[in-house]
Amino acid sequence: MSTPSETDDRSDTADTADAGDATTVYDLAPEHGTEAVETGARYHATVNGVVAYGVFVDVADDVSGLVHESKLDAEYGVGDDLVVRLDEIRPNGDLGFDEVSIDDYETVAVEYEPEVAAADDLEASIGENVTLDGEIVGIEQTGGPTVFSLRDASGVIDCAAFEAAGVRAYPEIEVDDLVRIEGTPERREGAIQVEVDELTAFDDAADLRERLDDALGERAAARDVTPLIEWDALDKLWEDLEGVAARLRRAVLENRPVRIRHHADGDGMCASIPVQLALSRFIEAVHGDDSAARHLVKRSPSKAPFYEMEDVTRDLNFALGDRDRHGQRLPLVAMLDNGSTEEDVPAYEALAQYDIPIVAVDHHHPDPGAVEGLLGEHVNPYLRGEDYGVTTGMLCVEVARMIHPEITDELRHVPAVAGLTDRSEADAMSEYLALAEEEGYDESDLQAIGDALDYAAHWLRYSSGDALLTDVLGVDAADEDRHRDLVEHLSERADRDTDRQLDAAMAHVETESLDNGAQLNRIDVERYARRFTYPAPGKTTGAIHDRKVAETDSPVITVGYGPDFAVLRSDGVRLDIPEMVEELEEEVTGGGVSGGGHLVVGSIKFVKGMREDVLDALEAKMGDAEIDEELGSASVAGFED
Amino acid sequence: MSTPSETDDRSDTADTADAGDATTVYDLAPEHGTEAVETGARYHATVNGVVAYGVFVDVADDVSGLVHESKLDAEYGVGDDLVVRLDEIRPNGDLGFDEVSIDDYETVAVEYEPEVAAADDLEASIGENVTLDGEIVGIEQTGGPTVFSLRDASGVIDCAAFEAAGVRAYPEIEVDDLVRIEGTPERREGAIQVEVDELTAFDDAADLRERLDDALGERAAARDVTPLIEWDALDKLWEDLEGVAARLRRAVLENRPVRIRHHADGDGMCASIPVQLALSRFIEAVHGDDSAARHLVKRSPSKAPFYEMEDVTRDLNFALGDRDRHGQRLPLVAMLDNGSTEEDVPAYEALAQYDIPIVAVDHHHPDPGAVEGLLGEHVNPYLRGEDYGVTTGMLCVEVARMIHPEITDELRHVPAVAGLTDRSEADAMSEYLALAEEEGYDESDLQAIGDALDYAAHWLRYSSGDALLTDVLGVDAADEDRHRDLVEHLSERADRDTDRQLDAAMAHVETESLDNGAQLNRIDVERYARRFTYPAPGKTTGAIHDRKVAETDSPVITVGYGPDFAVLRSDGVRLDIPEMVEELEEEVTGGGVSGGGHLVVGSIKFVKGMREDVLDALEAKMGDAEIDEELGSASVAGFED
Amino acid sequence: MSTPSETDDRSDTADTADAGDATTVYDLAPEHGTEAVETGARYHATVNGVVAYGVFVDVADDVSGLVHESKLDAEYGVGDDLVVRLDEIRPNGDLGFDEVSIDDYETVAVEYEPEVAAADDLEASIGENVTLDGEIVGIEQTGGPTVFSLRDASGVIDCAAFEAAGVRAYPEIEVDDLVRIEGTPERREGAIQVEVDELTAFDDAADLRERLDDALGERAAARDVTPLIEWDALDKLWEDLEGVAARLRRAVLENRPVRIRHHADGDGMCASIPVQLALSRFIEAVHGDDSAARHLVKRSPSKAPFYEMEDVTRDLNFALGDRDRHGQRLPLVAMLDNGSTEEDVPAYEALAQYDIPIVAVDHHHPDPGAVEGLLGEHVNPYLRGEDYGVTTGMLCVEVARMIHPEITDELRHVPAVAGLTDRSEADAMSEYLALAEEEGYDESDLQAIGDALDYAAHWLRYSSGDALLTDVLGVDAADEDRHRDLVEHLSERADRDTDRQLDAAMAHVETESLDNGAQLNRIDVERYARRFTYPAPGKTTGAIHDRKVAETDSPVITVGYGPDFAVLRSDGVRLDIPEMVEELEEEVTGGGVSGGGHLVVGSIKFVKGMREDVLDALEAKMGDAEIDEELGSASVAGFED
Repeated sequence: MSTPSETDDRSDTADTADAGDATTVYDLAPEHGTEAVETGARYHATVNGVVAYGVFVDVADDVSGLVHESKLDAEYGVGDDLVVRLDEIRPNGDLGFDEVSIDDYETVAVEYEPEVAAADDLEASIGENVTLDGEIVGIEQTGGPTVFSLRDASGVIDCAAFEAAGVRAYPEIEVDDLVRIEGTPERREGAIQVEVDELTAFDDAADLRERLDDALGERAAARDVTPLIEWDALDKLWEDLEGVAARLRRAVLENRPVRIRHHADGDGMCASIPVQLALSRFIEAVHGDDSAARHLVKRSPSKAPFYEMEDVTRDLNFALGDRDRHGQRLPLVAMLDNGSTEEDVPAYEALAQYDIPIVAVDHHHPDPGAVEGLLGEHVNPYLRGEDYGVTTGMLCVEVARMIHPEITDELRHVPAVAGLTDRSEADAMSEYLALAEEEGYDESDLQAIGDALDYAAHWLRYSSGDALLTDVLGVDAADEDRHRDLVEHLSERADRDTDRQLDAAMAHVETESLDNGAQLNRIDVERYARRFTYPAPGKTTGAIHDRKVAETDSPVITVGYGPDFAVLRSDGVRLDIPEMVEELEEEVTGGGVSGGGHLVVGSIKFVKGMREDVLDALEAKMGDAEIDEELGSASVAGFED
Repeated sequence: MSTPSETDDRSDTADTADAGDATTVYDLAPEHGTEAVETGARYHATVNGVVAYGVFVDVADDVSGLVHESKLDAEYGVGDDLVVRLDEIRPNGDLGFDEVSIDDYETVAVEYEPEVAAADDLEASIGENVTLDGEIVGIEQTGGPTVFSLRDASGVIDCAAFEAAGVRAYPEIEVDDLVRIEGTPERREGAIQVEVDELTAFDDAADLRERLDDALGERAAARDVTPLIEWDALDKLWEDLEGVAARLRRAVLENRPVRIRHHADGDGMCASIPVQLALSRFIEAVHGDDSAARHLVKRSPSKAPFYEMEDVTRDLNFALGDRDRHGQRLPLVAMLDNGSTEEDVPAYEALAQYDIPIVAVDHHHPDPGAVEGLLGEHVNPYLRGEDYGVTTGMLCVEVARMIHPEITDELRHVPAVAGLTDRSEADAMSEYLALAEEEGYDESDLQAIGDALDYAAHWLRYSSGDALLTDVLGVDAADEDRHRDLVEHLSERADRDTDRQLDAAMAHVETESLDNGAQLNRIDVERYARRFTYPAPGKTTGAIHDRKVAETDSPVITVGYGPDFAVLRSDGVRLDIPEMVEELEEEVTGGGVSGGGHLVVGSIKFVKGMREDVLDALEAKMGDAEIDEELGSASVAGFED
Repeated sequence: MSTPSETDDRSDTADTADAGDATTVYDLAPEHGTEAVETGARYHATVNGVVAYGVFVDVADDVSGLVHESKLDAEYGVGDDLVVRLDEIRPNGDLGFDEVSIDDYETVAVEYEPEVAAADDLEASIGENVTLDGEIVGIEQTGGPTVFSLRDASGVIDCAAFEAAGVRAYPEIEVDDLVRIEGTPERREGAIQVEVDELTAFDDAADLRERLDDALGERAAARDVTPLIEWDALDKLWEDLEGVAARLRRAVLENRPVRIRHHADGDGMCASIPVQLALSRFIEAVHGDDSAARHLVKRSPSKAPFYEMEDVTRDLNFALGDRDRHGQRLPLVAMLDNGSTEEDVPAYEALAQYDIPIVAVDHHHPDPGAVEGLLGEHVNPYLRGEDYGVTTGMLCVEVARMIHPEITDELRHVPAVAGLTDRSEADAMSEYLALAEEEGYDESDLQAIGDALDYAAHWLRYSSGDALLTDVLGVDAADEDRHRDLVEHLSERADRDTDRQLDAAMAHVETESLDNGAQLNRIDVERYARRFTYPAPGKTTGAIHDRKVAETDSPVITVGYGPDFAVLRSDGVRLDIPEMVEELEEEVTGGGVSGGGHLVVGSIKFVKGMREDVLDALEAKMGDAEIDEELGSASVAGFED
C-alpha cells in the first residue's frame, strides 16, 4: 500500500498532451488510466509480456499496449524498461507504441491526483467509488465496523471500515491523522456513510492541513442571525457572542466534546439548555447521527456559583478517562452564567495543565484581571458597560441561534423566563415579554416556568435532568399540553412548599431598626427552617425578604444565617457586599470570612466559632450603609447553601 | 414494499374455485401462488412476454402461463392487460390460458391472506417461513441485528432484522406499531427467535388491535393459586392482590419496565424481593431471555418511609432518558410496603404528568382519600378492616405466586420472616412459622434472617444489593450453606454492633415517671450514640426501648431525639402519634412539626430551634395518654433517621 | 460431536505399526488420518458402499479403501462390520484391503491424540489448524463472536467462536471447564487470536487439571528481581512480598479480577498505583489486549484507614453482580497500606462468606492475631521486627516489579515519594532519595509530588482518578513536562490553601503548659477551620502542629477536635495512643470511645455529648506522659475526618 505523496505541483493529466517536445518522457504514476496518455507523447514503459510479433508494455498499471516487432530497436525480456511513444489508439481501445531511442531527455513524473470528493456532497455519488482527503476527527469501534469520522474542507462524514465484527480496523490510524479514504458512499438510516475500501495516512501534507484549517475557520464562524429584539446591550456584546458561538461550532466540527458547566438556577438553565440543544442539533446536522450528540455534549449544573475544585477534578478525570478509553479528544469547557470571577481561577488553572480550552458567558460581576488570560472567550455585560440585568439566558439564546439558527422558533419565550427568574430590570424585558406573549405565554406563565425549573432542579440535586427540564422549559419539541401541565404542577408545588417553609420560619424572624432607618430582619435558617427540603436556606431567606418588603415602605434588609454562612438581601440600601466582605476579612481576626455578590444581594461564609463576631460587625456596617430607594434586590438564587 | 391492508372480509383462496360463474373475473393479489388458481376460472392478467407462438401472462407475481396464439383474440405487447381463463394445469406444472373477451363482468379482488402463525407456537415451524401479525413492544439495537419484540395474541417473540452490524433495521418502525413480520423461526440459545425477511407496518388495523388487547387482558390475568395458609385476612384482600398481579403481568407482556420502590426494612425486602424474582422469571418465560429481566425490573429501596420528591424526580428523569435513548416505554411503578399515605401524593402527581401508572401494596395506616385517585391498584389491610399485623411481605409473597406460581417453593419461609421483622401479632403468624419450620427454619433462624437483612441493607445504603440480599433471604437458588453461614455471620455482627452502641448509650438514658404512671425514657441519640454506624438512631432507640421494657412491668415509652427529630416507641400507652402530630403542629407556633406513625410507634420532625418546646409539649401529652397494657410496640424500622 | 476422552496411555499412532501380531485388530478412532494405518495391520471396518467389483470400507472417517471382490469371504451390505487387513497403499494414495476372517483376536482401541499446541507458541501456526487443551478462564460475549479465554500450561489465549453476531456460542460451556479447542490462530490487532472450529468439554481430565495447576503455580511465581536498594528490611520481607506477587500474578493467569483497596494518602497511592500498573501490563502481556486490564483491575481508595463495612458490602455486591451478569469470577482483594488491624476483621469475615481471597501489605501497627487466619498473605514490617519507617509504597514498588519487572524504570522515584509523604525516618531514605535524584528529582520535587497527590486525591473524593494520578505521580508514560507542570500547580495550590486555612485557624489555637513541661495546643477544627475545603480537619491539625513545633524547643502536642472526634500529634512526648484509647474506653462511662494510632500520632472518636469528659481525661493523660525528645511525629494523613 503506497502512501500518496502530496506535491506542490498538482499536475494535471493534460500536461502529458504536450507531446511535441521531443525531449520530454513522462513517468506515469501507476494509478493513471488511458485518459492520461496521448498519441505522440513519450512514456517510460516496462515489458510485461513477450510474444512472437513484439512485446507488451505497461506505462501504468492499467495502461498497456503492444510495441510491434517492427517498431522495436532491441530485444527485451519481461521486466525490462524502455522508452516508448504512443503511436495510435485503435478504435477498440488497444494502444500501439513505438520504441524511442533517445539519450537526452527530461523525465517528467506525472503524479496521480484522483478527483477528490467533498464530504458534504456525496449524495450524487452513492454507490460509486470516491476519494476523500481529510483529517480523522473521531474513531469509534462498534460491535461491527470501526467508524472513522473524517473532516474535510466541506464537512464531516462517517466512514466505516470493517476488519471483523468488533475488531479495530487500521489500528495504526489515530485521531488528528491526515488521511486519504477510498470507498463507497451508502445511505444508512437516512444519513450517508462511506464504506471504506482503503484508508491511507499522508506522511506529510502541510497544504492539506492548511486548507482544512482555513475551511474549519470558515465553517466554524457564527451563523448570521438577527437579534431577537433590537437592543443596544446586545449590539455591544454581539461580536463577543459570535466568538463564543464560533468556538462551540469549531468544537463540533473537530469532534471535540463540549462540557457545559452552568449556574444551577433559572437563568443558568435558560442559558445552558438552549446552547446544549443547538449544539446537539448542529452535531446531528454535521454527523447525520443523533447519538453522537449524547457523547459530545454534556451539561452539568454546578453546586456552587463558581467552578469548584471538586467539580473540575472530576471533570478532568472523566475527560482523561474518555481520552484513554475511547480515544476521545479532551473537551472544550463552556461556563454559562458562571465563570467570570476570581473564584474560578484554580479550576481554570487545572484545566490549563491539559490545554483544555474554556469559554465563559456570565453576567455576574467579573474579575477580568484574574480570568482573562485563562479564557478563550469571555462575554460579560459588565465588560461592555452593561450590568446584571442583561441575563446570561438572554445572551445564550442568541449564542444558540448563532450555532444553529433553525432552533430560533423554540426559544422565543426563553429570554423572558431568564429575565424573570433573575429579576432583570432591563428595559428590554418588556420586549422579551411581548415576544413570549406572541408564543402564548403571559408573564405569570413565564414566572411559573421559572419556578418549575427551580423546583425540578432542586430535586434533581445537580444531575442534569435533560429530558425533564426540556419539558419544563418547553423546548426540544416538548408536548405542549404536557409542558403546560408539568409547569403548573411543579410551580404549584413550589409555592405550596414555600408557604409551608415560611409558616414555620416567619415566627422566628427578628426585626429591628438600623441607624440609617432601614428595617433589618434576621433569621437563623438552620434552626428555624426545615432542612433538606424545598426551598433551601438561601431561597427561604429570599422569600422571607419578599414578604417583609411587601409589608412596609421602609428600606428592608434580610439576613438568613446558619452556623457558618449568611445570605443577604436588600431593597433600598446600598450594601455593596464585595466591599463588606473585604472589610470583614480584615477586621474579624480568625473569622475566615469569604463571599461575594452585588450591591443588594450576596452571601458570606465564615468559620462557625466566629459567627457572632462576624454578624455583629456586619450589622454595624449595614446600619452605616447608604439608603438608595431605587435599589431593588435581584434573585438570591445561587447563593443558597 | 406494499403495506398489507386489513380487510374485514378475510377472503379465502378457495373463493376462486367458484369457476362456473361466467361473470366473475378474479384479480389476484401479487403474493398468491399457484394454489390460488383453478381451471375454468377467469383472471385479470398482464402480458410479460411475447413469443412467436403466443404471449406469456402473469395473473400474480409467481403465477404465469402461456396464452397460445390460437387462443388469443388480439395482438398484445408486454405490459398489456387482458382477461384470461385457466384452461389447464399441465403435469409439469405449466399453466395454459385462453383469452376471454367479455364486457360484462364483475371483478372480485382476492386479497392475499397468508396463514398467520402464533408467537408461542413456532416450535414446529423452525426453519420454515412464517407470517406473524402483532404489536412491536420493544426494539433493541444489538451490535449485530436489530431485535424487535413482537407481541401477538399468544405471546411475545423476539424477531431479529439485520441491516448491517450495529445498524438499526427498519428505522421507521417504533414501539406500539402494529406490524406483519415474515421470517424464519430459528433456535438461539435454547429460545426461539425469528429471523426477519420482511417487516411491514399496518396502516390501520383496528380489529388486530382489539384482538391483541383482548388477548393481553386474558394473559395478564393473575394466575390461579391457593393461599399459602388459610386466613380470613388473605381472603378479604385476595381480589385486590389479583388486581396488582394482573397489572404487573400486563406490564411484562407489554414490555413495560417495572420500577419497584419499597420500604428499606425487613418487611419491605420480604415484599419486594419475591415480586422482583417472580417478575424476572415471568419475563424469562415470556422472552426466553434472562438478560431482559435486568432491563425491565428494577428494585430500589426508599430512604424515607414514603416516596420522596428527590426519588421520584430521579426515577422520572431516568425513565425519560431510557425512553429517549433506548426507545423504552415509561415504567409501571410498584410501591411495596410504602405508598398508602398522603406524603406520597406529590410524587404520585409528578408521575401523573407522564401518565405513569402506579400500584401500591402497603400495610401502613393509609390515607385513602388522598391517594386513591392516583393509584391504579391500592391494596392495604386497613381498607378491608384488617391491620398492620398483615404485613406487606405476607401479601406480596402471594402476589409473586400469582405472577409466577412456579416460584412458590422458594418463598414458603418468607412470610414468617416478614412477620417477625415487623413484629406482627397476627394469629396467622403461628401458621407461617409452621410453614417455615417445614423448610427447616425455626423461629430463631427466621429472626436471624430478618436481622441479617436489616444489617446488610444498612451497609448497602439504599443500593438494591440484589445478589447479596437473595443469598441472605435464601431465595433464587441461593446456595443453602452459604445462605445459612451468611445469615449467621451478619446477624451476629448486627447483635454485636447493637450491643456496642448500647454500651455507650444506656448510660445517657434519662428515666422519669409520667402522671399516668408510665415510665418515660429519653435519650439524645445524636449526642449519645455513635453516628454513621449500625444501628442508626431509630433502631438504637428501639433497642433501648426493648431493654427498658424487659426491666419493668410498667407501661414504657421511649423517646430518642436528635436536633430536629424524635423517634417514639410505647408499650402499654396509647399514644396515637398521628393525632399528637396534628395537635403539636397547631400548638407549637413556628415549630414546623410534621411526622406520622401508629398508636405506639412513630416519628416526629421539627425545626432545630424549637426542639425543647416540641419535646416538652410532647411529654405533656404522653403523661395524659391512656394506659392500655394490651398495646405492644411494633418495629420502629422505617422511622430511622 | 464426541467428547475426547483422556487416557493415561496417550497411544502413539506408531502403535498400529505392530502389524505382525496376528491376534491384534485395531479399532481406530474416527478422527485418524491415513498416517495412522500401515500395510499388514488389521482393522475393524464398516462397509460404506457396494460396487460390482467389491465393497468400499471405512476404518476411520477419512480412511477408506476397497476390498476387492476376490478378497472378500462373504457378501456385505452398507453398514455391515468386518475385519480387514491393509494390503497395499497405491501410489495415488488409494488403499487396498483384504477381508480377514479370524475369531480369536484382541481389539486394541487406538485413541486419536492430535498434537496439542501451546497457547504461547502459536506464532508459527498462524493460518493453520491447531488443537489446544486447557481451562476456560473467561468468556466474553462481544457484539460479534463469543471470546473464550483458554489457559493452558503455557499461557492464556483468546479464542473467538462465532455463532451469529452477538449470540453466545457454546452456551453450555462455563468458566472453569476443561476443554479442547480446534481452530486457527490469526493475528488480530497485533495479538494472536484463535478462530474456533470446534470446542469440546472434557468429561473428566484429572491429569490435564493437574498439569494446568502445576504450570499455573510455576508461571504465577514472583519474577526474580533485585531490590532497588540494598536494605536489611527488604531482605527480611522479601519472601513475604514474593508471596503477594505470586498471588496477584496467579489471579491474572486465572482471569480473576483484582480489587485493590488502599489507604487514601500519599503512601497508599505510591503503593497501589504501581501495583495496578504492573498488573495492567502483565494482563496485557498475557491477554494481548489492553482493554482486559480495565475490567480486571480496579483500585479504590478507602475513606477510613480500614476496610469499612459499607465499602466491603458495596464491593461484595458489585462482585456478585459481575459474576451474575458477566460470568466473571469473584475477585482477589488486595489491601495496600491498610488491612493489618482488628478493625478490618468484620469486612474480611464478610468476604470469607464467599471464599474471596485477600492479601494485605501494610505498615500500620498490625493485630496479627485478629487478621492472620483471614488473609492469604500478610506483609507488615512489624511482623519481621521492622517498623512504620518501611512504608507500604517502598514495599509495593518491589511487588510491582516482581509482577512485571519491565515496569522498573518508571518507578525508581516512587519509594522516595512514599517515604517523604509518610515522613519515614528509615536509614534507607537517603538511598531512595539518591535513586530519585538519578531520575532528576531532588527532595523538594519529591515532596511536591507528595503534596500534589494529596491535593488531587482530596478533590477526587475517593474516586480512583487513574489518569490524573498517574500524571501526578509521573508514571505510565506520563508526559514529562505535563507531569512537572501539574505537580507544580497542584502543590502550590495545596500550599496556598493550607496557608489560607491556617490564617483563620491559628488565631483560635489555645496553648497551655502540661505538667510534664510539654506545650499543649488545642483547636476546635469544626468551629475554627473552614469546612469542605482543603485541607480537611486532620491535615489542618497536622499543619498547625508543624508550625508550633517550629516555634519552640519544648515538646509539643497538638489536639484538633470536632464534635465527636479528636486528632492527635506529638513531637517529643510518648503518647501511645492505642493504650490511651483503651484506658479512656474504660474510664469514661458512656463515652463511646474508640480510635487508634501510634506513639505520636492518632485519632479518637467519642459520642458528641461526652466530648468535654473525654478531652479532659485525655489531657490529664498527656500531662502524665513520658517526655522522649527523640520521638518525631509521622504523617497524620489517614486520620483525617
